[in-house]
Formats: sequence, structure tokens, C-alpha cells
Amino acid sequence: MLIDRLIDKIIKYQNPTVVGLDTDFDYLPDSMKKNCVNFKDVADQIERFNFNLIDALADFVPSVKVQVAYYESYGFEGLRAFFNTLNYANSKGMITIADVKRNDIGSTAAAYSRAYLSGVNIGGKLQTAFPSDFITVNGYLGEDGLLPFIDDCKRNDKGVFVLVKTSNPSSGQLQDKILGEDKTLYQNMADITSKIGKELIGKYGYSNIGAVVGATHKKQAKQLRDEYKSMFFLIPGYGAQGATGKDIAVSFDKDLKGGIVNSSRGIICAYKKEEYKHLDYKQAAVQAAKLMQEDLVKSIKG
Amino acid sequence: MLIDRLIDKIIKYQNPTVVGLDTDFDYLPDSMKKNCVNFKDVADQIERFNFNLIDALADFVPSVKVQVAYYESYGFEGLRAFFNTLNYANSKGMITIADVKRNDIGSTAAAYSRAYLSGVNIGGKLQTAFPSDFITVNGYLGEDGLLPFIDDCKRNDKGVFVLVKTSNPSSGQLQDKILGEDKTLYQNMADITSKIGKELIGKYGYSNIGAVVGATHKKQAKQLRDEYKSMFFLIPGYGAQGATGKDIAVSFDKDLKGGIVNSSRGIICAYKKEEYKHLDYKQAAVQAAKLMQEDLVKSIKG
Repeated sequence: MLIDRLIDKIIKYQNPTVVGLDTDFDYLPDSMKKNCVNFKDVADQIERFNFNLIDALADFVPSVKVQVAYYESYGFEGLRAFFNTLNYANSKGMITIADVKRNDIGSTAAAYSRAYLSGVNIGGKLQTAFPSDFITVNGYLGEDGLLPFIDDCKRNDKGVFVLVKTSNPSSGQLQDKILGEDKTLYQNMADITSKIGKELIGKYGYSNIGAVVGATHKKQAKQLRDEYKSMFFLIPGYGAQGATGKDIAVSFDKDLKGGIVNSSRGIICAYKKEEYKHLDYKQAAVQAAKLMQEDLVKSIKG
Repeated sequence: MLIDRLIDKIIKYQNPTVVGLDTDFDYLPDSMKKNCVNFKDVADQIERFNFNLIDALADFVPSVKVQVAYYESYGFEGLRAFFNTLNYANSKGMITIADVKRNDIGSTAAAYSRAYLSGVNIGGKLQTAFPSDFITVNGYLGEDGLLPFIDDCKRNDKGVFVLVKTSNPSSGQLQDKILGEDKTLYQNMADITSKIGKELIGKYGYSNIGAVVGATHKKQAKQLRDEYKSMFFLIPGYGAQGATGKDIAVSFDKDLKGGIVNSSRGIICAYKKEEYKHLDYKQAAVQAAKLMQEDLVKSIKG
């Protein structure tokens, strides 16, 4: 099962890190930016940057999370780079997470699901637009907006992370308020997530249907960890957003099981930092990723 | 202002309809499907179908809503058709709504906003990936996930529709529950939407920042209409999902102001219905759209 393969890789590499390829054009070195005049040029350079990072990271980082917003901002050319990046990471053995936060009503949610998790039949051949292992989804529409994704997860051993408790400053504005009887909105979302993921639990006790739980809200993360034992967490908020290894530790057991921690700019833009200025962007990313690995493992294992 | 231009068009045409170009490949006539073997073929045919519908509808329908999920399911080729469809509708004077339901934290929301509402600067030239008048957004992340879109709306006279009360069956699972003191989640979402839209109110008293309010939940729609006077509604749920002209009327004043009603399959797939089988898909769409217009105007004006 997918979630088992992800956890096996985390244990093998002793590294619960997912590198976020949120590759904005502005993040590229000047030498790669200088001759770009249209979206095709931009997409080609972003792809080259991503491929090089994947080559540098694939032997000790289990997974990449590719944030589609940046690729979308460069049009269908950008989305070609998104597609190629997912495929290249997959070919290097990395587990791919398409961070798309999609959401819609039944038949339209099914179309999104076909785009990432199952594919469409054209001329008798099944073809998938943006093949991904996991995607992120937003559950504001309730269960019937999520089930089309879950159906494909069951059929094709795919996974989703439902936005439960996000890492941003105003995340509490709605999510932390009590909804209904005595549970917060994010707990209600976690209840739905847990319920729809029950049939997809693997050998380690975690489900292919996980949750996005920001590390910037430690109390809520701990409460979710204690209450939803089979829920695997995709954890943003480390580094740039302020969460430390200690904040992360509450989401894990001592064997590094329980989640995977994202860092995007902290790694892909590491070459811009003073301390790495003697390194190129690949070397700087490797250094930053190794430092993160060390911090996480020390904090989690205690 | 954008919202004024939309309302002017609704009044001029006496037609508060938006046609949803949710163009799944399966919806095309067999003659258009038969030689397609890859995403490029599919995208070319979808584009042709859309262009023909736009030509047939543009002189009496004020707006199109293009549902990106279907285009995404055909990869970056599909998204080229999405781009061309938005541009073609715009060139024919239609107001375009990209139904993308995007959502993310600050910097990533800003990237989404650049994709649809503002553009990116490449080689000294501002280029927009998928230029749209309005987009739909999901506010689960709270206000700071919405503000990057609002900033671009202010700068470029663009608009968004925030998902407030969706039309699907399980929409009430979270949205109808009391959140916090004594308001539902959807009212809380409406409060945020209303607050962030205050500076973008046009001559008719409506804001560029509107709300998605499904017609399938009449009681909630009426309550939102009474409480949020400056909120313009994008209204799904008519036809295929079961809402009638009478259900819609609560969202409007007698002069057809207050919202715009979507129909997708009811119009673009009208040619498949028994009563239209003597017509081609363009003629059938025109007939179905005229019938809808008549039903809406009669129900709203009473």
C-alpha cells in the first residue's frame, strides 16, 4: 500500500522530510532567468531547476510535494513543467504529492480526481493528466465532495491529504471555532477524514487518507495526534513559517512514524542564504535538507 | 466597475444566466469524438465545441463560467483549451468566470491570483496565464488566504466568488452547523466575504467580491439575501441539480439584480434530450438557454 511504501522510505532513509518544489520563477538563479521572455522559456528553466534538485535529493529524501499554484501562474506551459516534474520525481523513486487543494461537488470532483489519481479513457487507452501518488484536497463541501477522490484511492492505491488544520496565521478564524456541539471545525473535518479513510489502513496502522496539519499550531497538532491514531499528517510550517523540530515532534512516534514534514523555500532557495553562498543551488539544497533531517530526527527521537 | 458591467449586461439582455462550459469530452457529439486518440485531439475538439457555443449564445447570455476541472483532466493540452475558451468568450464581449475554487496560504494564494487576475512579469512584459474577470475561491483557510485575491481585485477591477453555501447534497454537513456563538459556518464565511468586499462596491450597491450560494437550499439563500445586501450571488443548482425558477427568485430583486444563475449540462448537453433531437448542439443550446431565461425572468419578476 502507498502509505506503507511512504513510511518504509521514511524509515529506510531515517528522514521524515518532503521537499516542496514551490518553484516560482523568481527563485531561480539569475543565470537561469536572464534569457527568458515567455512562459515556455520560464517553464523550461523551472523544469531544469527541479530535475537537478530531484537528482541531488532523491537518494536521501523520500518525497516531493509539487505546489501547482506556481506552475499555473505560467499557463499551460507551466503545467507541462508540473507534469514533467511529477514524472521525473516518480522515475527517481520519490513519492509524489501534488499540492492542489482541489474541491468541488460530486461530478466535478470526479473530474479533478481523474486528472491526478485515475485518468481518462481516450481512444481505448487510459491516460492520466498529472499522475500523482497523493494530492491535497479541501473538504469545505462535505463528504460527497471528497468521496470521488476516495473511490479512486481505493481502486488505484492512491492517497489524499485533507486540509484539517492549516499553518497560516488566520487558520483559526474558522477552523478553531466550535462547530455544532463541542468540537471545532477542524475536528469535524478530521472526523470526516478519519471516517472516509477507514478502509485504506496499511500495515503500520496509518491510512492512505491523511490530513494536512500545520506545525505552527502545536497544541492542535498534539490533540489531533492523540485523537486520530490512524491519520498520517502532511505537516507544513517548518522553517520559513516558524515551526521548529520541537513543534513537529508531537505529531510523531519515536520511530519517525506519523507524518512527513514539508520545507519548500528553506531548501530550494537555500543557495540565497549567506552561509551557503559558496555553494550552487543543488549543493545548498542538499546541505539544508541534511540539516533539516538532523534537526527533525533529533527532535523526534529525543 | 466589473460588477456594474455584469449587472448592466444582465439588465440589457434581461437574462441573469451564466452558461457553464463544463465541457467533458463525453459531452461532445460522437462525430467530434470519433478520431481522438490523445489529449491534443480532445482539447482541439472541446475548444471547437466551446467556440461554437459561445458564437451561438453571446448575443443574449451575459457570461460564461468555465469549470477548470474538466480541462485539467486532459492535461496541459486541456488547459490550452481552457485558456483559449476564456479568451474567445472575452473577445465576444462575455464576462468570464473561471470556476477554479482555488485556495492556499498567503504567498501561494498570491501565485494563484497571478495566474487568473493579475499576471507575472517576464522579460519586462506582464503576461497572464488564464485571464479571467471573476474566479471562484474557497475560504476554509480564513481571511489571509483570501486577501491576496482581493488585492488583485482592487488593483485590476477583478472579482471573486467565495464559496459560502454550496449546492451539493452534503453541503450542510459542515456549512449549516453553528460555528462559534450563534451563526452557522456559512454565515461566518459570508461575514468574511462581506468584510473583504466592502471597498469594491459599485453603483448598484453590489460588490466585485460575491458569494457562491446554491439554489438547492432556498431557506439559506433567502437568509443570506436578507442579511448581506451588497453580496452578489453566483448561483449553481438550477436544472440538473433540481432547483427551479421559484427557488432562484429569493436571491433577486424584481429588476433581476442580485445574482447570476448557472446552468451547465442543461444547456451544453441539451442536444442529447429527446425534445431537441432534431437540432444540432448549438441550436439545442440556444433553445434550452432561451427557455431558462424565460423561466428565470418570469419567476423573478413574478
